[in-house]
Amino acid sequence: MINKPEFSIPEPTLRRLPRYYNYLKELLKSGREIVSCTHIGKDLDLDPPQIRKDLAYTGIRGVPKVGYQIEVLLNSIEEFFGWNNMDEAFLVGVGNMGRALIDYQGFRRYGFKIVAAFDNSPDIIGKTFGGVEVLPLSKLTNLCSRMNIKIGVITTPDHAAQEAADMMIAGGIIGIWNFAPAEIRTPEGVIVQNENLATGLAVLSKKLQILKQSGKFRQEVDQ
Amino acid sequence: MINKPEFSIPEPTLRRLPRYYNYLKELLKSGREIVSCTHIGKDLDLDPPQIRKDLAYTGIRGVPKVGYQIEVLLNSIEEFFGWNNMDEAFLVGVGNMGRALIDYQGFRRYGFKIVAAFDNSPDIIGKTFGGVEVLPLSKLTNLCSRMNIKIGVITTPDHAAQEAADMMIAGGIIGIWNFAPAEIRTPEGVIVQNENLATGLAVLSKKLQILKQSGKFRQEVDQ
Repeated sequence: MINKPEFSIPEPTLRRLPRYYNYLKELLKSGREIVSCTHIGKDLDLDPPQIRKDLAYTGIRGVPKVGYQIEVLLNSIEEFFGWNNMDEAFLVGVGNMGRALIDYQGFRRYGFKIVAAFDNSPDIIGKTFGGVEVLPLSKLTNLCSRMNIKIGVITTPDHAAQEAADMMIAGGIIGIWNFAPAEIRTPEGVIVQNENLATGLAVLSKKLQILKQSGKFRQEVDQ
Repeated sequence: MINKPEFSIPEPTLRRLPRYYNYLKELLKSGREIVSCTHIGKDLDLDPPQIRKDLAYTGIRGVPKVGYQIEVLLNSIEEFFGWNNMDEAFLVGVGNMGRALIDYQGFRRYGFKIVAAFDNSPDIIGKTFGGVEVLPLSKLTNLCSRMNIKIGVITTPDHAAQEAADMMIAGGIIGIWNFAPAEIRTPEGVIVQNENLATGLAVLSKKLQILKQSGKFRQEVDQ
């Protein structure tokens, strides 16, 4: 459907890199300067060769038997993702999820900032959440193109997601981060990243099922 | 760190199955009864052989040149994940993210229900969100073991996540779904599913970067 460009970097790698980044930030804060893949693997429960491979995608190599300088590694990941260039985004749908995303200061670390939010409800329009004003949905398309916004976040209910996407795309948005549990149809040249919250839950519940069947799970502490 | 049992099903498959499920529900609603991997692949922008492989993990095979009965496929995925057995869960940290998860009715579809929420703040304790009462954190461990709760959701700030996990584990919880941007340390036999919201963002921004470099992105509509 989408004529997608070649993404030669595997998505699991892309998903692990931010995790390394957060972990390395903490490690640096705790006073450490050098780290090995073995050490990272032990702390994050991952295979060291996989970690080495993941990190190599950012263009960095460790020194054999020594490891990586954490500071250099952090810079390498930042540059890889382009986190030094701030991306401004619009959000549509100011319910709990929308507010959670607006409030989540952690995104700044990733060069990402929600600069305006849009909703249909008169109860919310004009209010401010986390310094971000809620504007009427009718202004979305126009403001997108005027402010040259390229990323849109959808946190609407299911049935309103496609309309929000269409308005975003009409305004020139090319990257949509979709939290609504609905598949969005988009024209060629627009990327949709679906964030289905229930996915993590499904993975967890399947792992628990297997754990219970294996009989290896932890018994109540006070038995 | 965790002595994990063997999960022979690849995590990317586990993550795609709920997506198929949602999509197939919609398809069924629209009046369709049979579907092929080619059709699914076209709609979800995935390779048909990959889809066939993913679905086979649930124990189902399609009929060559015909496809799958959607109803049967849905049942197969439900049974695979055990969604017919309702899992009750406790949540700690009733901020915007916590409320978004409590409100998200979609989880019921996945056999998952948050039955109580816990927080430290006197402003919130005693209030009810989406029919779920907020209780003081001090009651968490005791209630966990009394109600035999096995799954815990953490939506606290960063610094409070480890304490919440420790209290959950003391109460007998063996599966933790962690939304706090912090790595949680747990003893053997406890599974942690980390949900870093920024991961999806990182994947999206990297894809956008590649798209922009390829020059293939959609230009403003009205230029």
